[in-house]
Amino acid sequence: MQVVETLARSFPEFAAYLVEYPFGDIYSRPGLGLRERELAVVAALCAMGTAAPQLRVHVRAALHVGCLPREIVEVVMQMSVYAGFPAALNGLTVVREVFTEAGIELPLRPEPSVTR
Amino acid sequence: MQVVETLARSFPEFAAYLVEYPFGDIYSRPGLGLRERELAVVAALCAMGTAAPQLRVHVRAALHVGCLPREIVEVVMQMSVYAGFPAALNGLTVVREVFTEAGIELPLRPEPSVTR
Amino acid sequence: MQVVETLARSFPEFAAYLVEYPFGDIYSRPGLGLRERELAVVAALCAMGTAAPQLRVHVRAALHVGCLPREIVEVVMQMSVYAGFPAALNGLTVVREVFTEAGIELPLRPEPSVTR
Amino acid sequence: MQVVETLARSFPEFAAYLVEYPFGDIYSRPGLGLRERELAVVAALCAMGTAAPQLRVHVRAALHVGCLPREIVEVVMQMSVYAGFPAALNGLTVVREVFTEAGIELPLRPEPSVTR
Amino acid sequence: MQVVETLARSFPEFAAYLVEYPFGDIYSRPGLGLRERELAVVAALCAMGTAAPQLRVHVRAALHVGCLPREIVEVVMQMSVYAGFPAALNGLTVVREVFTEAGIELPLRPEPSVTR
Amino acid sequence: MQVVETLARSFPEFAAYLVEYPFGDIYSRPGLGLRERELAVVAALCAMGTAAPQLRVHVRAALHVGCLPREIVEVVMQMSVYAGFPAALNGLTVVREVFTEAGIELPLRPEPSVTR
Repeated sequence: MQVVETLARSFPEFAAYLVEYPFGDIYSRPGLGLRERELAVVAALCAMGTAAPQLRVHVRAALHVGCLPREIVEVVMQMSVYAGFPAALNGLTVVREVFTEAGIELPLRPEPSVTR
Repeated sequence: MQVVETLARSFPEFAAYLVEYPFGDIYSRPGLGLRERELAVVAALCAMGTAAPQLRVHVRAALHVGCLPREIVEVVMQMSVYAGFPAALNGLTVVREVFTEAGIELPLRPEPSVTR
Repeated sequence: MQVVETLARSFPEFAAYLVEYPFGDIYSRPGLGLRERELAVVAALCAMGTAAPQLRVHVRAALHVGCLPREIVEVVMQMSVYAGFPAALNGLTVVREVFTEAGIELPLRPEPSVTR
Repeated sequence: MQVVETLARSFPEFAAYLVEYPFGDIYSRPGLGLRERELAVVAALCAMGTAAPQLRVHVRAALHVGCLPREIVEVVMQMSVYAGFPAALNGLTVVREVFTEAGIELPLRPEPSVTR
Repeated sequence: MQVVETLARSFPEFAAYLVEYPFGDIYSRPGLGLRERELAVVAALCAMGTAAPQLRVHVRAALHVGCLPREIVEVVMQMSVYAGFPAALNGLTVVREVFTEAGIELPLRPEPSVTR
Repeated sequence: MQVVETLARSFPEFAAYLVEYPFGDIYSRPGLGLRERELAVVAALCAMGTAAPQLRVHVRAALHVGCLPREIVEVVMQMSVYAGFPAALNGLTVVREVFTEAGIELPLRPEPSVTR
């Protein structure tokens, strides 16, 4: 991953921890699917409001592991309830940037009311 | 829900908003399943660290909509990476209380390595 | 104030700073009324969600400087928009405790629609 | 409002919620004046420290509903006590930008010691 | 450590991570003394305001690795500047509890003005 | 200090408080060395995640009072445990910028395992 590589040039020991603990230990655990993991991380980073660069990384990662654009938007919108409208608005700004890069057109077309 | 009823006795207008916006508008939206919604909320409340009573409510709700105990524990453990070990530890304290009430024995037996 | 006295027994130097900076320097400044100051503090402490004991002190202080119970409740309810429903709910829990002590009956009767 | 229009182009459903809940339901409530509401929001967003774009919007809104520049500055300075000097300093940076756009000269002249 | 043991009974895998990453990897690193590490952790947990149980553990740990009671109090008082007076006040409440258990009398006698 | 001078042009009264309370009252206190004070502030601001400009100022200040580059990096890395990896990563970004300005080459050479 690019984040890890950049980090490794300046702080190689911390890059090693990052690979080891979050990626090596936590993500590889069975018991929760990668899609659910990424949606949970998007929720948490959006709610915290102090981690815009990491939210960007994880919106991309969520798409990468197969989360639908609509699912990501729903998680971020839902954060308005738990962390307030500013948290959700700032989260949607990040989502829009990532979706634009990824060629995902906004607004998303309303889905037929079928949950996965 | 009991939270809403208690609230309604003292702050009926706010109880009405709570029913209307989070529950009426947000939870009923298609595009994200209830299981994923509850896991995302558990993640967010655990990461924020300022909402222990609401985390308790949503750990119960997560069980209620069919999240597995193991999935809830995985989401909370994962928060150690994003919000720090204290956030995860305090989240696990809440999880343990809810699981005890619900008769779910801890430690959970290790699952065979099958993700859903 | 009782908070300052208790503090002074264990940490007299910090009690002195507390009297000096927040109370001596900031509260005595012209340019903003005490009622507005207390409503702003109630808003901030409720939104932060990490300062329940201080929120309690300032809900009492708000009543003491002449804020109406309704005004305090409105400020706390409004925080649901900016800091999320859990922040507002936890704030209302504190408000209810202080109002009960102060003999203010809940629910407040709906006011006729006149803003001050 | 411009924020809502921009939002509506990408996330029309969320723009609708924003108009409906915060603006439709909360702001229109009697029991607290608009000036007090905006000062409370400025306090909260400044204290939270995670919502600079929204703080900018609400400093403008505070001026728009008749808050005096001095009152806004006092609220932000007061946040140094409750959320620390960095929160107040970052809040004053936003205030300076909005005041500059609005043609309000800084430093404000010291007011005669009359509270409103 | 008692925290780890209690945790291990309910969440053995997370207890293992806690021993492995924070304690195994981070604390054992040269380049920063244990006294400085513990003072930094006390500062951070006090400023965050969401981790009272962990602050308690680390105030004890700070004493254990040889931090003077005065140094701990100074770090917590200093947080009033960076995270606000409520954060410092709540931190001092935890400090007082730990000092009482440890038989450290408060108020500390003023030290002669010699920094270590 | 440059921050205070810039501030003084727009908000002279707040600049006066900043000089008076944090710098005049708190930093000059005996009982904790300046090196320990700056490391504690770096820890707190990194963990809070809402004060990047102030973190920058205090990484510079830490170097200025004699903290070793390695000590600063260790404190920031340690925050991954208490406030999560995003807080530490964003802190390291600030550290890298300040070190580059100060001509401190990264990666730091591994130190021989001698704690101060």
